[in-house]
Amino acid sequence: MSLLIVCPGRDPGTWIRELKREDSSVEIERFDEDHKKEEVEFILSWNHPRGIFQDYPNLKVIASMGAGVDHIISDPDIPENIKITKVIDDSLEGDMSNFVLMQCLNYLRNTYRFYRNQQKHTWDKRMYRRPENTIVGILGMGILGQVVGEKLFNNGFKVQGWSASEKDLENIKTYAGDSNLNQFLKNSAILICLLPLTSETENFLNREVFQKLPKGAYLINVARGGHLNEDDLIEFLDNEHLAGAALDVFKTEPLPEDHVFWEHSKIHITSHVASITHPESIVPQILENYQRMKTGKKLKHTIDRDKGY
Amino acid sequence: MSLLIVCPGRDPGTWIRELKREDSSVEIERFDEDHKKEEVEFILSWNHPRGIFQDYPNLKVIASMGAGVDHIISDPDIPENIKITKVIDDSLEGDMSNFVLMQCLNYLRNTYRFYRNQQKHTWDKRMYRRPENTIVGILGMGILGQVVGEKLFNNGFKVQGWSASEKDLENIKTYAGDSNLNQFLKNSAILICLLPLTSETENFLNREVFQKLPKGAYLINVARGGHLNEDDLIEFLDNEHLAGAALDVFKTEPLPEDHVFWEHSKIHITSHVASITHPESIVPQILENYQRMKTGKKLKHTIDRDKGY
Ligand SMILES: NC(=O)c1ccc[n+]([C@@H]2O[C@H](COP(=O)([O-])OP(=O)(O)OC[C@H]3O[C@@H](n4cnc5c(N)ncnc54)[C@H](OP(=O)(O)O)[C@@H]3O)[C@@H](O)[C@H]2O)c1
Ligand SMILES: NC(=O)c1ccc[n+]([C@@H]2O[C@H](COP(=O)([O-])OP(=O)(O)OC[C@H]3O[C@@H](n4cnc5c(N)ncnc54)[C@H](OP(=O)(O)O)[C@@H]3O)[C@@H](O)[C@H]2O)c1
Repeated sequence: MSLLIVCPGRDPGTWIRELKREDSSVEIERFDEDHKKEEVEFILSWNHPRGIFQDYPNLKVIASMGAGVDHIISDPDIPENIKITKVIDDSLEGDMSNFVLMQCLNYLRNTYRFYRNQQKHTWDKRMYRRPENTIVGILGMGILGQVVGEKLFNNGFKVQGWSASEKDLENIKTYAGDSNLNQFLKNSAILICLLPLTSETENFLNREVFQKLPKGAYLINVARGGHLNEDDLIEFLDNEHLAGAALDVFKTEPLPEDHVFWEHSKIHITSHVASITHPESIVPQILENYQRMKTGKKLKHTIDRDKGY
Repeated sequence: MSLLIVCPGRDPGTWIRELKREDSSVEIERFDEDHKKEEVEFILSWNHPRGIFQDYPNLKVIASMGAGVDHIISDPDIPENIKITKVIDDSLEGDMSNFVLMQCLNYLRNTYRFYRNQQKHTWDKRMYRRPENTIVGILGMGILGQVVGEKLFNNGFKVQGWSASEKDLENIKTYAGDSNLNQFLKNSAILICLLPLTSETENFLNREVFQKLPKGAYLINVARGGHLNEDDLIEFLDNEHLAGAALDVFKTEPLPEDHVFWEHSKIHITSHVASITHPESIVPQILENYQRMKTGKKLKHTIDRDKGY
C-alpha cells in the first residue's frame, strides 16, 4: 500500500520530506519515478495529467494539495467510488483574508492611482472612500468566503454574501440561489469571487453579472481564472461601468506574456499568491485521512462528487 | 467678538458653511477679507502667514483645523498666554489606522513589486510574509499611535510603541524615552512614524535610527515631512539596509516635480491623504471650545505649550 504524489511542474521534495517527518512509516511514491500502480491507494495531487487515475486499480482517495479541487474534478474519467478531499487550513484562510482586505483598502484608498501618479511626478490629493460606507459582496460563502467576510466586517466594511444554500450569519447579510442574485449584485460596490470552479460557476463573472453591479464597482477575483469571461471584463472596464479589477487567478497561469491584461491600467495583477499552501501545515490532515482510509473510517474534508465542490 | 478663519491656499467656504449650520449666531470673519482685528478672540488656523497672530490684541485661542499643531507652534511669535488646541476625531483616527494597515499589508504582500512586474509582463510567484511574524514599531504613542497600534494588533501584527512617557497598554509592548529607543528599534521590521513635529523630533528619522533597525526594515511616515532626513533615507534604501518606504508627508508639499523621491523604486508616495480632516466632523468640537472660551471654561484638546504638542 502506498501514497503517490502527482504534481507535474512542481517539486514533490518538500512534500515528501514533510510527510516522512510526520510519519516515517508511510510508503511514498513519486509519479515521475517508477512505481507499482497496483500498490497505490491514495494520491496526493495537483494538476495531474488527464486520465491517469484510471491506471490505479486500487485507488480509493485523491487528495488535493490545495484548497481548490477543480484541477481534479475537471477530469471526466475519475471512477464514481473514489473519494476526493480538499484542504481546510487556518493559515490558508488567514492569508486569503489578509489579501482580500488589502485589495479592498487599496481600492478605497486609490493605491494604484497613486502609483501611476508617482511615475508621472503628479501630486493629486484625492479624497478616499471609507469601509463604513462600502458594501462588499462575496460570491461563495464557503470556508474562505465566510472567513474573508468576517475579516472585512471586523475592519468596518458592510458585508453581504451569496451562496447556493441559505446561511444564517451574525454579521453578514446573506443571499442564496439565482433568484436572489440580482438583489445581491445591485448593492455590491466591491465584488469578491470565492466560488469553487465547477460546471455551474464557470464564466460566472460575465457581462450579465457586471451590468447588474452598481456603476463604479470593483472586482476582486481570488477564486479561479475559469470564473472570469475576460472579454466581458475588458469591455466593462473600458465602458467605465467597472472601476477596476484585482485579479490573482487566470485561465492560463502563468499569465502569457502577450496577454492584454498586463497592459490594462484598471487591472491589477498578482501571480496566484492570495493564499499559498504550505506543505508543513497541510501534511497532518493528509496523513490523518490516509490513516482513516486504511482503517476504514470516514474521511475528513471530502467533496460532494455531484456538486463538484 | 468673532471667530476668524485663516487658511491661505484653502477655501474657507465649507468651514464657514458648517460652522453656520451648527450655530448661526457665531460671528465669523475670513482672513482674506476685511475684518476688525480687535474683535477677534478665536482663530481657526491652517498654515497661517508667520507673525500674524500678534496683530490680534484680544486673541485667546488658536485652534488647528487638523490633527497636527506644528504649523502653529513653529511660529515663534505667539504670546505665551494664548491657548492652542488640536483636533481629536474618531474618523480621523479610523482613516489613519486603515491607511497604515493597508501600507503594512502592501509591504508584506509585495504590492509595489507586483505593480512593477505587471509593467514588465513578469509573472513572479513570490512568497509573502505574515502579520503574525512581523513586529511593527510605532514612534509616538499618542492618540493616533495608540489607535493604529490597536488596529494592527487586531489584524494579527505584533506591535510595540515608543513615546516620551511610559505607557501601560494591554496589547502593545511599550518603550519610553531615549534610553529604550535602541531596544525598540532593534525589533521593528516595520517602523511607523506618528510623532508630533517639534524641535525635539525634527529630523528624527535619520541614519542614527535607520542603522539600528533590522536589515530589510520598512519605513512608513504618516506624521510630518519634517521628521525625515531625506538624504539619509535615500542612502539607506540604496545600500539595501531598508527595504522601502511609504511616505505620505514631505518637507515641501506638494512634493516638487523634480524631487528625487518620485523616481525612487523603493519609495511609495501618497499625497498627504492618510487621514483627511472633514469640516463636518471637526466643527462641533471647534464650536464647543469657542463657547467654553466665551464662558471661561477649560478648553478641550489644548496642547502643552512647553512640549509643543
Ligand atoms: N487565489 C488563491 O490563492 C486561492 C487559494 C485558495 C483557494 N482559492 C479558491 O477559493 C475558492 C473558494 O474556496 P473554498 O474552500 O472557500 O470553497 P467552498 O468551501 O467549497 O465554498 C464554496 C462556496 O461557493 C458556493 N457555491 C458553489 N457553487 C455555487 C453556485 N452554483 N451558486 C451559488 N453558490 C455556489 C457554495 O455554496 P453552499 O455553501 O451553499 O454550498 C459555498 O458557499 C475556490 O475557487 C478555491 O479554488 C484560491
Ligand atoms: N498624514 C496625515 O494625514 C496625518 C493626519 C493626522 C495627523 N498626522 C500627524 O500624526 C502625528 C501624530 O498625531 P497625534 O495626534 O497622535 O499626536 P499626539 O497625540 O500628540 O501624540 C504624540 C506622541 O508622540 C510622543 N512624543 C512626542 N515627542 C516625543 C519625543 N521627543 N520622544 C518620544 N516620544 C515623543 C508623545 O509621547 P507622550 O505620550 O509621552 O507625550 C505621544 O505619545 C502628528 O505628527 C500629526 O501631525 C498626520
